[in-house]
Amino acid sequence: MALAAAIDLGGTSVKMAFVGEDGRIERKWSVPTDTSESGKNIPADIVRSLRERIAEVGADRVAGVGAGVPGAVDGGLVRRAVNIGWTGVDLGGYVERELGLPCALLNDANAAALGEMWMGEPGAGSLRDLLFVTLGTGVGGGIVIGGQALNGANSCAGEIGHIPVGGWENRVCGCGKTNCLESYGSANGLLRTAQEFAAEAGTARPGSCEEVFSRAAAGDAEMARALDVTCDILARAIGGVMCTVDVEEVVVGGGLSNAGEALMAPLAEKLDGYVFPAQRGRYRIRQAALGNDAGILGAAYQVFRTR
Amino acid sequence: MALAAAIDLGGTSVKMAFVGEDGRIERKWSVPTDTSESGKNIPADIVRSLRERIAEVGADRVAGVGAGVPGAVDGGLVRRAVNIGWTGVDLGGYVERELGLPCALLNDANAAALGEMWMGEPGAGSLRDLLFVTLGTGVGGGIVIGGQALNGANSCAGEIGHIPVGGWENRVCGCGKTNCLESYGSANGLLRTAQEFAAEAGTARPGSCEEVFSRAAAGDAEMARALDVTCDILARAIGGVMCTVDVEEVVVGGGLSNAGEALMAPLAEKLDGYVFPAQRGRYRIRQAALGNDAGILGAAYQVFRTR
Repeated sequence: MALAAAIDLGGTSVKMAFVGEDGRIERKWSVPTDTSESGKNIPADIVRSLRERIAEVGADRVAGVGAGVPGAVDGGLVRRAVNIGWTGVDLGGYVERELGLPCALLNDANAAALGEMWMGEPGAGSLRDLLFVTLGTGVGGGIVIGGQALNGANSCAGEIGHIPVGGWENRVCGCGKTNCLESYGSANGLLRTAQEFAAEAGTARPGSCEEVFSRAAAGDAEMARALDVTCDILARAIGGVMCTVDVEEVVVGGGLSNAGEALMAPLAEKLDGYVFPAQRGRYRIRQAALGNDAGILGAAYQVFRTR
Repeated sequence: MALAAAIDLGGTSVKMAFVGEDGRIERKWSVPTDTSESGKNIPADIVRSLRERIAEVGADRVAGVGAGVPGAVDGGLVRRAVNIGWTGVDLGGYVERELGLPCALLNDANAAALGEMWMGEPGAGSLRDLLFVTLGTGVGGGIVIGGQALNGANSCAGEIGHIPVGGWENRVCGCGKTNCLESYGSANGLLRTAQEFAAEAGTARPGSCEEVFSRAAAGDAEMARALDVTCDILARAIGGVMCTVDVEEVVVGGGLSNAGEALMAPLAEKLDGYVFPAQRGRYRIRQAALGNDAGILGAAYQVFRTR
């Protein structure tokens, strides 16, 4: 069976794996991400590691290389990837020249979206349209339409964390705008909201999202309210995305999704009130299933899809 | 030169035309829309009229039929079109069987989007990704990605009029939800807002959007404020759409767009504040250029694209 060499390029490590056409991960390894000197050593580090492993499995078995990158990609070019210091790095071309294999690049959220579409659940492979939402430090998004990741005219498609939302105060986002979805709907956003509500009520300041969830479950009114308004803002924005792209499934991943039903149940209920009425009962929402492997699998999917 | 037989099916008339591959409209005519008996006579009326005209231009010149329909389409099927009373009408199949020509259906806003992409301005044919927004009684939307209209998993893509927005009161939308974009951003929404602001201030109640614009231009503070908040809500929602699909161009049509710069200038300025920063300076916004011909031209484009 043909293998894809799949890469998930992150700010601290570069995860790599060989993935079969059946989605099975054959082996997995990682190398540290060397962000020194604007990350200029990263491409050579990746190629060196891949070359060594490809020799081990046999070059004739490897159909191509796929990589998810934490930034904006345009063909084989990484336009910008702030966390690793890149601007205009031709990673795709470099890998192709060095390894003699086709290399497909994806934004990391798009890679995760494709991975969840491909391997996220039994029968998931039949889906063609999907929104992947990642709720972590920020809010990321990947959109798949007709089985293809939507990259956008300026490599900005799926930047749903920066959808302007109506907030009750002005929160400046890392992107420079005010009241982006991720200012309220991310793990950081939830914690900030919960801390503000606790301060207003004179109750103990929560130190983590875990604490917000556990106190809400135990009946803490402010924590429950923080969770409620956070789910409402998320559902409203995702509802708007549904009115725009009308996908079959919404998949929620990232650290906040580890709360499971405590997050997913209110989010799903609120979302149903915000989608276009003709969509009700005709889309699904679920928690992401693949965790950290989603990006690797999506990168592999892209290799098999485009060869 | 090959011709497309193009149809723009509306609630009062069915506009039809032959369109050349160069986008020139060779002739144009219309028949009344017979909405009696749940619109059951409409398909036969269309076929009768087309058959007659096709015989005049020569059947061998006609490459196919394209139709924009005011509702949700799924392949050749019209799932629902409220204004003409249709639910589950196989217009595409009927036309193909009766005329022996391929028939492509589109939602009307998608047809207009394709028309504006194809013929909306000199050089517009080079665009591949576009959002068409129509501001009339309601707010409609059509999204083109990679040269293809986005229909969605449930034929609801581009329903941007139903994006939930933060309003200052609860406005019930015709779709049953509360505070949809079109409750505030349509011509009706603007007029309602302006009337409310006038009532609060004790000034004369405006009777039309034209009056709102003319009084705002003459320095009426309430009318100016109504225009400002309407543009802000529109820009915020369109900014969210841009963060989601990242198109190259936003085209604004519909009755409200006839106000020209009085609408477009504040809308464009506000939109620039709401898009993802990496998009600034890399997308365009313009007033629609084709008026009522946009749908006809988009339907023709679809014929030539898919044959």
